[in-house]
Amino acid sequence: MAKAFIFDAYGTLYDVQSVADVTEAAFPGKGAYITQVWRMKQLEYSWLRALMGQYADFWTVTRESLAYTLATLGLTADERLFEAIAEAYNALTPYPDAASTLAALSGHKRAILSNGSPGMLKTLTARSGLDTHLDAILSVSGKRTFKPDPRAYAIVEEELGIAPQEVIFVSSNGFDIVGAKSFGFKVARIMRVPPEALKEELSGDVISPATVFKALRSQEETCGARPDFVISCLAELVPLADA
Amino acid sequence: MAKAFIFDAYGTLYDVQSVADVTEAAFPGKGAYITQVWRMKQLEYSWLRALMGQYADFWTVTRESLAYTLATLGLTADERLFEAIAEAYNALTPYPDAASTLAALSGHKRAILSNGSPGMLKTLTARSGLDTHLDAILSVSGKRTFKPDPRAYAIVEEELGIAPQEVIFVSSNGFDIVGAKSFGFKVARIMRVPPEALKEELSGDVISPATVFKALRSQEETCGARPDFVISCLAELVPLADA
Repeated sequence: MAKAFIFDAYGTLYDVQSVADVTEAAFPGKGAYITQVWRMKQLEYSWLRALMGQYADFWTVTRESLAYTLATLGLTADERLFEAIAEAYNALTPYPDAASTLAALSGHKRAILSNGSPGMLKTLTARSGLDTHLDAILSVSGKRTFKPDPRAYAIVEEELGIAPQEVIFVSSNGFDIVGAKSFGFKVARIMRVPPEALKEELSGDVISPATVFKALRSQEETCGARPDFVISCLAELVPLADA
Repeated sequence: MAKAFIFDAYGTLYDVQSVADVTEAAFPGKGAYITQVWRMKQLEYSWLRALMGQYADFWTVTRESLAYTLATLGLTADERLFEAIAEAYNALTPYPDAASTLAALSGHKRAILSNGSPGMLKTLTARSGLDTHLDAILSVSGKRTFKPDPRAYAIVEEELGIAPQEVIFVSSNGFDIVGAKSFGFKVARIMRVPPEALKEELSGDVISPATVFKALRSQEETCGARPDFVISCLAELVPLADA
């Protein structure tokens, strides 16, 4: 029986697509593009900074990737607008079953392990109310690296005293799933986009940036070990809790 | 005066888009998509494997990313077809000014430093004839990591005895430009897609996968120091040689 459920935040408990209202309001007609490219570059920059040994916290990475994205469109935002858009990452919408699932798992340790900076995670979990269902909120920031660096995953045992094989790590992000599995956790993959749905989206004549995002980031990766469990939403974790 | 010009291979001396003939012949109507997603995942997997400490050589990474890409479309290729598509990365077309530029720089050390495995690079440079214009062909493979890990860039001094500040490193790849600059090289960025051209492409109603690729990977990154030189093609290196 697993002793702890450790959750990724961005894309797993929280819907990163929920920044689209803010990006669209800031730049009408461009919101969908900005939302996708921003997220793709945000992760890319976290990997590059970790690999270069040039760590900067995830709030910096989030703002750098937003700046890159706006520049591709030739857009500029004054400081107030820029900060308002960036702040959307601190006000993401939780998935509808996030609170109820965390509540149902209260017999186990429940924690977040996220790339987010401590400040970002504190704001995010307090605003959404998920903090009341969490035993710990762990940021990679103390290690000055990002997932999938194994040093990031080691924080769970260091902070909570729970061995990797007693953890079910939960993520919808491919890089995080292979990283957590490579580290030694049991891993539950949330499959938000089934292969058949993606194939259908890709069969049309027009492939939108949102579809490219799904194509790049929603499918099971082929560069590492497979997850232990594949589920379609957070609520499906509950029956796993006593398995 | 720079003592050496060190070149990235994929996207810098060689046009990675030149696999499109092979991908399109294999899967008519899907070649453009496969070409773009394959390249995006190929680099992503190199970063993830390096960061996870799960190195596999670039030939493995190239094949894993191709497998991922075909799976997103629900396509399968038998072993012979799969290998034939993957082999396109060993038969890339050099940029038209690659040979003449290398020849014009013959008063300096000229070398490749690439993520490619030694076998891939040997085949690529021999087929294209660029090997006759190169003093060294350096692969990151001995370090069991990928660019932009600083250990990858350290190979230049270790193998050629040339200090970083005496090197002009040449790349069109954003991650490689920030990585090389962070390491300590002088860096010449080849700007293959000017910001105005990208902005124009993004102004239409339809954004193709090729445009998303350009948006993600052709512009100057905002997560590191800026390059020393920005040029629009390889030939513009020649006047820099004695600067």
